[in-house]
Amino acid sequence: MGRVVARPMLAGQIAEKVDCTLRGDGNVTVQSVAPLESAVAGDLSFFSDSKHRRAAQCSTASVLIVREGDANELSSSPLGERVLLLHPAPHLAFAKVLDLLFPAAPFSGGIAANACVDVTAHIAGARIADFAVIGARSKVGSGTTISSHCSVGNDVEIGADCYIHAGVRIGAGVKLGDRCVIQSGAVIGADGFGLQPSRQGWQKVQQVGAVVIGNDVEIGANTAIDRGAIDDTVIGDGVKIDNLVQIGHNCRIGNHTAIAGCVGIAGSAVIGARCMLGGAAMVNGHLSICDDVIVSGGTLVAASITTPGRYTGVFPYTEHRAWTKIAARLRRSAA
Amino acid sequence: MGRVVARPMLAGQIAEKVDCTLRGDGNVTVQSVAPLESAVAGDLSFFSDSKHRRAAQCSTASVLIVREGDANELSSSPLGERVLLLHPAPHLAFAKVLDLLFPAAPFSGGIAANACVDVTAHIAGARIADFAVIGARSKVGSGTTISSHCSVGNDVEIGADCYIHAGVRIGAGVKLGDRCVIQSGAVIGADGFGLQPSRQGWQKVQQVGAVVIGNDVEIGANTAIDRGAIDDTVIGDGVKIDNLVQIGHNCRIGNHTAIAGCVGIAGSAVIGARCMLGGAAMVNGHLSICDDVIVSGGTLVAASITTPGRYTGVFPYTEHRAWTKIAARLRRSAA
Amino acid sequence: MGRVVARPMLAGQIAEKVDCTLRGDGNVTVQSVAPLESAVAGDLSFFSDSKHRRAAQCSTASVLIVREGDANELSSSPLGERVLLLHPAPHLAFAKVLDLLFPAAPFSGGIAANACVDVTAHIAGARIADFAVIGARSKVGSGTTISSHCSVGNDVEIGADCYIHAGVRIGAGVKLGDRCVIQSGAVIGADGFGLQPSRQGWQKVQQVGAVVIGNDVEIGANTAIDRGAIDDTVIGDGVKIDNLVQIGHNCRIGNHTAIAGCVGIAGSAVIGARCMLGGAAMVNGHLSICDDVIVSGGTLVAASITTPGRYTGVFPYTEHRAWTKIAARLRRSAA
Repeated sequence: MGRVVARPMLAGQIAEKVDCTLRGDGNVTVQSVAPLESAVAGDLSFFSDSKHRRAAQCSTASVLIVREGDANELSSSPLGERVLLLHPAPHLAFAKVLDLLFPAAPFSGGIAANACVDVTAHIAGARIADFAVIGARSKVGSGTTISSHCSVGNDVEIGADCYIHAGVRIGAGVKLGDRCVIQSGAVIGADGFGLQPSRQGWQKVQQVGAVVIGNDVEIGANTAIDRGAIDDTVIGDGVKIDNLVQIGHNCRIGNHTAIAGCVGIAGSAVIGARCMLGGAAMVNGHLSICDDVIVSGGTLVAASITTPGRYTGVFPYTEHRAWTKIAARLRRSAA
Repeated sequence: MGRVVARPMLAGQIAEKVDCTLRGDGNVTVQSVAPLESAVAGDLSFFSDSKHRRAAQCSTASVLIVREGDANELSSSPLGERVLLLHPAPHLAFAKVLDLLFPAAPFSGGIAANACVDVTAHIAGARIADFAVIGARSKVGSGTTISSHCSVGNDVEIGADCYIHAGVRIGAGVKLGDRCVIQSGAVIGADGFGLQPSRQGWQKVQQVGAVVIGNDVEIGANTAIDRGAIDDTVIGDGVKIDNLVQIGHNCRIGNHTAIAGCVGIAGSAVIGARCMLGGAAMVNGHLSICDDVIVSGGTLVAASITTPGRYTGVFPYTEHRAWTKIAARLRRSAA
Repeated sequence: MGRVVARPMLAGQIAEKVDCTLRGDGNVTVQSVAPLESAVAGDLSFFSDSKHRRAAQCSTASVLIVREGDANELSSSPLGERVLLLHPAPHLAFAKVLDLLFPAAPFSGGIAANACVDVTAHIAGARIADFAVIGARSKVGSGTTISSHCSVGNDVEIGADCYIHAGVRIGAGVKLGDRCVIQSGAVIGADGFGLQPSRQGWQKVQQVGAVVIGNDVEIGANTAIDRGAIDDTVIGDGVKIDNLVQIGHNCRIGNHTAIAGCVGIAGSAVIGARCMLGGAAMVNGHLSICDDVIVSGGTLVAASITTPGRYTGVFPYTEHRAWTKIAARLRRSAA
C-alpha cells in the first residue's frame, strides 16, 4: 500500500463530527478508507451511486456511509454485521471523513537555512522550504507554505494559507489570493507568446502585464499561465485548473470555472463564470465564452459562445478500417 | 495592478526615440501603457485596427499612437485634448515604446555563491543565479543569464545574451545560439521515445544525439524538446515555440517557424521555414511539411504537405445534441 | 556536432560482442554512429528497411550492419570497400552497438554536500546530486541516481538502478520499482483533480492514495501522474510513457503499454496490457480499454473498448478551403 497513513478514529466519533446517524457499534475503529471493492476490515467506504450496489453488498469494509433508505439492505457484509453511518449525501460526508482521518500536518512557519530570501521580502508567519528563492519586495502571507525548489520573482504577492508545492515558478509581479494550492511544476507568469512579424523575422513584444489570481484557486502540475502582454491575465475566485493546462496572455477566467487536464486557452480569450472545460478542449484566442457553458473534452472552440449549454465537436472514434471509409467519404464531399 | 513598473518618460522624448511625429504637448509624462479600454491619465496606448475605433474614441489614455489619417478624429478624448504620436504602423511603434518604458534590468555578470559550477566550465561574463548547476566543460556566453534552479548538463554550449528563466533543464551536449530566451520549466535534451519491441517487452534504445538550437530562438514554459536518437534534433534560427509544446527526437524545424501552445510534433518530422502551427496542432512522425505552411489549430497532420498554404482538419463544434446526430450519421455511413 | 562522444572500437570487436558475422576488415575503427545519409568515414550505420536502399548504397559510412541477403549489393561504398556486419535484425544489432559505444558513466554512489536528505531516509548505495531533497523515511535503492534539483517527498520508496533526471518531483508515499527512468520535469504524485460541487463553489476532495509504479518503467519529460483519490494510481511493469502526458488519479495502466507524447488519460480509466496510445490521444475517465488495443494519434476514446484492434477518430485534414465546405455540410446535416 503506497497510501498516506490515516489517523485512526472510532466510528462513533466520526458519526458525530460528520453529522451522520450511527447504526451499529460506535466503538469499531476506522483505520483508513478504501473503495468498496478493495476495502478490508478496518476500512471505511461509502455507497451513493446505484451502479455500485453489488460492490457495496460484497464489500468487506467495516464501516459504510449510506443513505437511510439503503441501510437495511447493507447492514451486514460477507464478514458479518457492518457499522453504518447514515447521511443524505454519502459522498459529501465521505469527503469530510477524509479531512478527519488525514488532517494536514500542523503548520509551522519559518525559513529553511538553505532558502534564499531577499532582504526586502516580507515573510510573516509563512514557511519557506529548502532551496526556495524569494525575490525582492515580495510578500508571502501567514500560514502559507512555499515548498522546496520554488522560485518566486520580485514584487510577487502571495496571500495567506496557500500551499505552493515543490518546484513551482512564480514570475515577477504575480499576485495570488488566499487559500490557493499550486501543484508542482506549474509556471505562473512566463512571458506570453507575443510576436510581431518584421523583415528580420519574428520580433518579441515585451510582456509587461502580470497574472492576478483570486482566492481558493487550485492550479495543476506543469500547468502554464502566461503574464499579460499589457494588461493582466486574470484568474477568478474559486477557479480550479488541472494538470498540463496552457492559459495564454490576457485571458480572463470567471469565478468557479473548472478546467480539466490538457486544455489549451489561447491569448485574450474571456471565459465566463461556472464554466466547465473538458479534458483537452481547446479555445481559440480573442473570443469569449459566456457563463455556465460546458465544453466537451477534445472540442475546439473556434468562435464565441453566447448561450449557456453544452457544446461538442469531436470526430467519433470507430474501428480503424471503418474510419478510413468515413474519412474518404468526407474528403470526397469537398470535391 | 500586478504590472511590472514602467520608467516614466515625456511624450516628446518617446516621439523622438520611436520616430513618430508628435502632435500635441510633448511635455506630457507617460507613466505606463495600457489597452485602450483600461487606460487612465498618464497611460499611452495605440490604435491600429478599425474594429477598436470606438474604444479609441472613448479611451482616457493621455497619449495615443495612431496613423496620420486617424489623427483628426482622435485628437481629443473624453478628458480633453490628447497627445498623438503619428506612425504608419502604430503596433510596431508601440512595441518599441515597451522597450523604452520597460528596459531590461542592467546586466551584471557573476556567479551566485550558492550556485554549483563545475571547475571545468567556462563562464565568461555570464550571470549564474542561486542554486543553478552547470556541468563539466560547459560554456556559457557573455551577457547570458542562467536563472535560479536551472540545471545545465555536461558539454553544453550556450551563446551570448541568452536569458534562461528559472528551473530550465538543459541536457548534456545541447547547443544554443545567441539571444535565445527559454521560459521556466522547459526541458531541452531529454531522451527521445526510442523503443524496440523484444520478447521481454519494450527495450530502450539509447539516445545519443543532441539538440542544436539556432540564434534568436524562444522556447515556452514547460515545453519539451528531445535529443536526437543518433543524429541531432535541430531548431533553426528565429524559431518561436510557445508553452507545453512537445518536439520529438530528430525533428528539424526550419528558420522563423512559429509553433503555438500545446502542439505536438512526433519524432523525425521535418518542418520547413516560416511555417505557423496553430495551438494543439499535431504532426505525425517521419513526415515533412514544406516551407510557408499554416496548420490550423487542433489539426492533425498525418501525411506530408508539399504545397504551401493553409491546412485544416477539425470537426466543427456544435450544440451537443446536434453533434450526437452528426456523429451517429457519420458512424452509420461506414456500415 | 552536438553529439555525446562515443568510445571508439574496432569493427571486429563489435562483430564479436553483438554477435554479427564480419565481412571485411575487422581492424577498421568505428568512431561513432550516424544515419545512412549523414555518416562519414569512421561511422557505423545500419540498413534494414528497403525504402532506405538508395541511401544505403550512397552512404559513406565505413561500417554497415545489414542482412546477409543485402551483403553483396552493399559491400562497397562511394569511397571504396565497406566493412559489413551481417545480422538477421540489423536495427536490434544496432541498438546493442549503441550500448557498446556509449556506455553509461560508471556509477558512483554518494550524497552531494549540498543535498538535503532527511536523517530518517535510507540511502544505501545510491547517488544523490546537488540540491536534491529527500524526505523523511524515504528509501532509495542501490545503483539509483537522484539528479540535481529533484524533490522526493516523505515515505517514498524508489527501487534499485533507477535514473531520476534533474528536477523531477516525487510526492509523498509514491513507490517506484527497479530500473525506472524518469525524465526531467516529470511530476509523480500531485493531487488528482478531485472536486465536489457545493454552495460555495468547488470543494477540494483530499487525495490520499499514492502512485505505485512497477519495474522498468520510463516516464517522459514534464509528464504528470496524479496520486489516487482513495486507492492508488498504478503503472504496470515495463510501461513506457513519453513527454507531456497526463495521467489522472486512480488510473491503472497494464504492463508493457506504450503511451506517446501529449496523451491525456482522465481519472479512473483502466488501460490493459500491451496497448499503444498514439500521440495526443485522449481517454475519458471511468472507462476501460482491454489488452492489445492500438489507439491512433489524436483520437478521443469516449467509451470503453472491449475488443483488441486499432481504433481511430480524427477528422482528416485538407486544404483549408475544402475543409470549410465539409464543415458546413456536416453542420447542415444536423438541421
